[in-house]
Amino acid sequence: MSFFTVRLTSDGVEMLDQRLLPAEKKYLLLKTGEDVARSIEDMVIRGAPAIGVAAAMGIAIELRNTNDAGLPQALDRICQRLQKTRPTAVNLTWALGRMRQSLEDKMATGMSASDLRAEADALAQQIHDEDIENCRAIGDAGAILFPSNARVLTHCNAGALATAGYGTALGVIRSAHRDGKVRGVLASETRPYLQGARLTAWELFEDKIDVKLITDSMGGSLMRRGEIDVVVVGADRIAANGDVANKIGTYSLAVLARTHEIPFYVAAPISTLDLLTPNGDQIPIEERSTEEVVVIAGTRIAPVGVEALHPAFDVTPAELVTAIVTERGVARAPYTDSLARLAGV
Amino acid sequence: MSFFTVRLTSDGVEMLDQRLLPAEKKYLLLKTGEDVARSIEDMVIRGAPAIGVAAAMGIAIELRNTNDAGLPQALDRICQRLQKTRPTAVNLTWALGRMRQSLEDKMATGMSASDLRAEADALAQQIHDEDIENCRAIGDAGAILFPSNARVLTHCNAGALATAGYGTALGVIRSAHRDGKVRGVLASETRPYLQGARLTAWELFEDKIDVKLITDSMGGSLMRRGEIDVVVVGADRIAANGDVANKIGTYSLAVLARTHEIPFYVAAPISTLDLLTPNGDQIPIEERSTEEVVVIAGTRIAPVGVEALHPAFDVTPAELVTAIVTERGVARAPYTDSLARLAGV
Repeated sequence: MSFFTVRLTSDGVEMLDQRLLPAEKKYLLLKTGEDVARSIEDMVIRGAPAIGVAAAMGIAIELRNTNDAGLPQALDRICQRLQKTRPTAVNLTWALGRMRQSLEDKMATGMSASDLRAEADALAQQIHDEDIENCRAIGDAGAILFPSNARVLTHCNAGALATAGYGTALGVIRSAHRDGKVRGVLASETRPYLQGARLTAWELFEDKIDVKLITDSMGGSLMRRGEIDVVVVGADRIAANGDVANKIGTYSLAVLARTHEIPFYVAAPISTLDLLTPNGDQIPIEERSTEEVVVIAGTRIAPVGVEALHPAFDVTPAELVTAIVTERGVARAPYTDSLARLAGV
Repeated sequence: MSFFTVRLTSDGVEMLDQRLLPAEKKYLLLKTGEDVARSIEDMVIRGAPAIGVAAAMGIAIELRNTNDAGLPQALDRICQRLQKTRPTAVNLTWALGRMRQSLEDKMATGMSASDLRAEADALAQQIHDEDIENCRAIGDAGAILFPSNARVLTHCNAGALATAGYGTALGVIRSAHRDGKVRGVLASETRPYLQGARLTAWELFEDKIDVKLITDSMGGSLMRRGEIDVVVVGADRIAANGDVANKIGTYSLAVLARTHEIPFYVAAPISTLDLLTPNGDQIPIEERSTEEVVVIAGTRIAPVGVEALHPAFDVTPAELVTAIVTERGVARAPYTDSLARLAGV
């Protein structure tokens, strides 16, 4: 891979600025937990697993900047700050919880401050490394489901850029491509942020996987014309019953896939499961600003005074999901059972 | 209305340059039939009825520039040239056919060259004026179908800008709004050309009708959330069986409307009917350039080397269309009968 998404170094957190892609490949060096929080809010980094990894690293560097006596308070404060950055991706909550639990356990044992900081570094790195491993396992598990010579549609970016590497939905596509099963990929551009055009098309093009761009409005018509064999997307949160929150537009594609009897797969790590949330109606859907819709590349596309709606995600009900692919295997309906089993509950 | 779409004057054809809206309201003065042909190809003007009106005016000004002896050849040549500009909108064929038939009939009677030119002017003006009348009749016929307090979704621009004035789908919205039946309108932005954001939002905002912009990917999710009561769109061509060619993305919205049991109306003049084409599979779908998808407002959004698909239209099968609203009344399934009856065949 010709890039990395986010990494922890002795200097801080290095992060690819995804807002500038594909025109520019620029890395930011973040020095504080607050820097990481802002980078998540401002979409420097996005994608549920990547947000979780970045948040873990944010804790690690925050503790580096904190004197020995202040560590418990700093841990509490930065966890609260990072939790507020974005509401829908549950991997954020998961990563913060894992870091906090582990570090508080260590504090309770009387671990030294310098060992605690080293522990935070090591766990953040582990969360990063596990995420890549998980993506590879997801990819391989999902590739088996693909038909041969598949023409694949994906929405938004659930790729290396949305994870620590390899990707979830794009992990499945990468593994299937490695296995000779992919004829071509259609990337829907994913307005308003254009993650499909800017990020997915870029990743696949760099990997020399045949990719063509479509607007978000074309998927249904191409399904009707028989030009799509399978749909695979990522997820920002999956409720206990299998309802899936993902980038706005996912639900429409799921309805269209069902109408055309095309399999619709969701690829996500176990950390995207939120078994405490019974169904999709309880998942908080982030509303972002009008400005992000009405201004494209610095140009205002609508009359001054006209507002836009901007729900960043939607919920796809479980009954439209053919299967959910995780690093521990493939879940199918009834999801309440299959997801709980995979999660080891 | 604070603008006009296209008009015939003694100087030529004046045309609002829709590519610059909403930032700039600039009119072009076209002097030749070739100028009009290019303005249609280059999307200065778009929308099936408006294209038909512009083409009729293009013939009229072409004949003004032609010496007496050359009139029959000039008529033939400019009709052929204009016919090639865009393949899907059948109103173009209809307007050219009407102009040609009438002028050739007059030539056969030995009408003088100057009378022929006056006749071309008068008929082009009549096609323009009738289009506005038709739109008002469509609007009033469609408004009756709306529920009270309706939250309306429309796609692309089937407004005053897509016709000689008032609009087809927006004509229905205007009439329903006048009758106090519209709570608000959602305009889907309509990538790649953003006719929804640039044109529909502008028209409705100017008319003080409550309009909010959404991306093309949001319609399905908003339907699921119960925020849309009715969908109304225009058409570029309607086949004899009621299949509707319209802006890409229309088909997806029709499927989603059906899934959510929301009425899906198509508003178009009789000149959009193509009873010689038995069904939608026979309607030619224009493929436009990759460049129009990957460049927005001068900024390239996808990596250099990545291509896009760009079917400009799609086909919505008749079974997804609740009713087709014309200036002669409302057609319902079975459309083969109801459309033929309205067309007077």
